[in-house]
Amino acid sequence: MEIVQIGTVHSPYTELGQIPGCAVDRMEEVAVVEVFQEYSDGLQDLEGFSHVMLIVHMHKAEEEKLRVLPPIDDQVRGVFATRSPLRPNHLGVSVVELLKVEGRNLMVKGIDFLDGTPLIDIKPFTSYDLQTPIRIGWLEGKTRQGKGPR
Amino acid sequence: MEIVQIGTVHSPYTELGQIPGCAVDRMEEVAVVEVFQEYSDGLQDLEGFSHVMLIVHMHKAEEEKLRVLPPIDDQVRGVFATRSPLRPNHLGVSVVELLKVEGRNLMVKGIDFLDGTPLIDIKPFTSYDLQTPIRIGWLEGKTRQGKGPR
Repeated sequence: MEIVQIGTVHSPYTELGQIPGCAVDRMEEVAVVEVFQEYSDGLQDLEGFSHVMLIVHMHKAEEEKLRVLPPIDDQVRGVFATRSPLRPNHLGVSVVELLKVEGRNLMVKGIDFLDGTPLIDIKPFTSYDLQTPIRIGWLEGKTRQGKGPR
Repeated sequence: MEIVQIGTVHSPYTELGQIPGCAVDRMEEVAVVEVFQEYSDGLQDLEGFSHVMLIVHMHKAEEEKLRVLPPIDDQVRGVFATRSPLRPNHLGVSVVELLKVEGRNLMVKGIDFLDGTPLIDIKPFTSYDLQTPIRIGWLEGKTRQGKGPR
């Protein structure tokens, strides 16, 4: 199926190597998510939410792999048990803090996408996304206070 | 860009009207998420996670609207401030409880997708997706204990 770009991520990261692997390291970076004019009417009422889910196309991922070696691990893992960009379809999802909506630009905190990444969708983040205590499988002990990396 | 289907959701809901609007109403329903053979190697290590994020194509949504009337509201809202399937690209994301991985089938709890919905991606759900208390904008007071609907 065909997917269209609805906007662009403007982030401080211009190279893959600059993206912090751990969420805790990127908490303070502020990025701008630009929504194209033709979709800006859909942003109404978004500002009341403290967090939004961004869906993007990780356009710099050229390869596709079903087993990957995560940067914080020494074992190869199934790609669906990671957030690696090398996954089929190269879609990325990040939950970020929404600081402000200025016209058709969102100011957000905690992004881990490259500058220029195509935006595909925005959704409000609601608490039903996390109702019960969670287990984090192979990531256990590899993250700081359960803060997961890619 | 072109997106491929990697599997299929087999859920108890065969019509749109059967899908519970509120997460709390669908907590107990069990569904099977089938991953196509060619992608099944990517499922390794997934079972350790208690929750996964499913990305799907909400294929029954034919219209595209930037302003929608949510089923639990009496005001029209920007589509990006809702989880309406009428959004551009018709992508859906649900965080579900992963009960079991059997071969290339995932048994999950808490799904709100129609039977036959094309699966696009699976990601592990990690606690960094929710680090700080959240505000839920126009949904405040419209949901039970902050459990958000579509």
